[in-house]
Amino acid sequence: MTKRFVLLLAGCLAASAGAQEREAPARLLPPPAGVSSELRSLSSTPPANYNQGPETAEGWAARQRASAESGARKAHAMAERLHVHVTSKTMGGVLVFDVTPALLAPTRRDWLLVQVHAGCYVLGGGEAATVEAILMAGIGHAHVVAIDYRMPPAAYFPAALDDVLAVWKDALKTHKPSRMAMFGTSAGAALTLEAMLRAKAEAMPLPAAIGLGSPMADLTGVDDSLATNAMIDNVLVAPHGFCDAAALFYVHGHDVADPLLSPIYGDLSQLPPAILVSGTRDLLLSSTVRVHRKLLEAGVSAELHVLEAMSHAQYLRSDTMPETIDVFRTVAAFFDRYLSP
Amino acid sequence: MTKRFVLLLAGCLAASAGAQEREAPARLLPPPAGVSSELRSLSSTPPANYNQGPETAEGWAARQRASAESGARKAHAMAERLHVHVTSKTMGGVLVFDVTPALLAPTRRDWLLVQVHAGCYVLGGGEAATVEAILMAGIGHAHVVAIDYRMPPAAYFPAALDDVLAVWKDALKTHKPSRMAMFGTSAGAALTLEAMLRAKAEAMPLPAAIGLGSPMADLTGVDDSLATNAMIDNVLVAPHGFCDAAALFYVHGHDVADPLLSPIYGDLSQLPPAILVSGTRDLLLSSTVRVHRKLLEAGVSAELHVLEAMSHAQYLRSDTMPETIDVFRTVAAFFDRYLSP
Repeated sequence: MTKRFVLLLAGCLAASAGAQEREAPARLLPPPAGVSSELRSLSSTPPANYNQGPETAEGWAARQRASAESGARKAHAMAERLHVHVTSKTMGGVLVFDVTPALLAPTRRDWLLVQVHAGCYVLGGGEAATVEAILMAGIGHAHVVAIDYRMPPAAYFPAALDDVLAVWKDALKTHKPSRMAMFGTSAGAALTLEAMLRAKAEAMPLPAAIGLGSPMADLTGVDDSLATNAMIDNVLVAPHGFCDAAALFYVHGHDVADPLLSPIYGDLSQLPPAILVSGTRDLLLSSTVRVHRKLLEAGVSAELHVLEAMSHAQYLRSDTMPETIDVFRTVAAFFDRYLSP
Repeated sequence: MTKRFVLLLAGCLAASAGAQEREAPARLLPPPAGVSSELRSLSSTPPANYNQGPETAEGWAARQRASAESGARKAHAMAERLHVHVTSKTMGGVLVFDVTPALLAPTRRDWLLVQVHAGCYVLGGGEAATVEAILMAGIGHAHVVAIDYRMPPAAYFPAALDDVLAVWKDALKTHKPSRMAMFGTSAGAALTLEAMLRAKAEAMPLPAAIGLGSPMADLTGVDDSLATNAMIDNVLVAPHGFCDAAALFYVHGHDVADPLLSPIYGDLSQLPPAILVSGTRDLLLSSTVRVHRKLLEAGVSAELHVLEAMSHAQYLRSDTMPETIDVFRTVAAFFDRYLSP
């Protein structure tokens, strides 16, 4: 057969399966009307430089420092407003931040929530790692420990996962797993799932529940929302942006389909009850809903929440936005069902 | 102040709130990879004539007949494959179809599921009204009654709602509300919510649970996915298409923000536990997730499911597609929790 005929045949087969690539035309996005004014103000044009990542390890390290510094400033302001106290210590040899609210909810007094920070496996470290923990401590009135896991260029896959496991092992010495949850957003949600797979494989006790915000659960590019929400999401913006580049920097040449990098391909049976959060504009909406269905298929209790017009993980952007308060109250109430039954 | 200054001021205020309209550029949509081959084959280019609705009552009547005929053919084929028996009768003076599977699940033997068909308040009547009932009866192994409610041009708002209520009142004579659910898709899900609001106002017993597939719950155009999923959804396709025109034909000059037309604006407290289903490509994804959050805010148990790469209500397109089986099994299992506790 000629090459042309083969191409024609392939085209016909794709067409008969309705499986052609197609173009979605440009469209106007009005400011979302059914959201808070704070979220509306966060829905502006995506940054033009979303796909300009550093090209050297030194470049990444500089970006990492900048992210840690701006995140630390944000965390300090949030901690003050939410009356949350942050100290640092080590657990299992790993640097963590102990995050305690001025007011602990009586029914959540003996909980320990282990939080794994976001940032594409490369950013959001140092005190920036405490942002999501501060929001949960301040809004959920519970004790949270935030893990400042190692990241490239200091250490590559599976260093971050090793650190999460080391902290979890140490937490088991002082707290009952039935009074603990693990949670995180984006790469932090992926690391939470990866930690569950690893802990299960090592026959360690699992927490009573997990929280997964917009999990970056599939690095193979299968998610449909990578196309449908491209340039609509104004945080991750589009595939092949800085976040994918950062994740690949961590991956360090390993197979991205490894369940310890793309946990959607792992055996999710026997995982703890999970709550998942995403937004209709989230570039990882598909990743979130696919993990939800995979968990249900595997017999795991899993609950999905999708916020109107929210781009990737925007509930981490503000501690006063009604959507942020909704998310953390909803996750804390979900943990109530399993940690304080 | 000059008009020009007022416009400038308005522009500045909008800009300071980050609330500008913005353009999302054209993008390529690859065939979705993380779905069944059947759903992938349903993800082709939207019909170009999606926004060419009839302009006269006679035109709508002709389109209505065509929809009833093609739907009836589809329903017959599905009923045969799924071993479901369909007969017609009246309940409360309204034409209904009694839909019974060859095999009733033992725990679902005394249920009655009341189904309200889709079709933008104008289409999908006659035997076409049985499609979703047949899928539920065949996959969920339960007894379903499908309401062939009146539609324009024969009768306008609130005739459809009146008919749903008349059937519900009649069903209460033979079945316990604790063994009944009401469910539907799109306009059928909106009518289900509207029926709950009306039944609550009239102090009638409510069913033990409701099922809401992609509810057309807000006719005021607030949903963000009307913009973000425009021309990505290949069923409803975009706002101001045939479906909006059909709904407005039913509305017949009433206020579209009336909770009996846009039930998201109703008082949703005390509604039965609800399961909601949508897809990431659904033009009504926002409507679905907004109803979910409104129900939760109102203290109602509500559970959300979003299917990867699914356009509006595509689970009604095939009785063999894995996603269809997933949806009806999931909804039936949700009903188990409340109808057979």
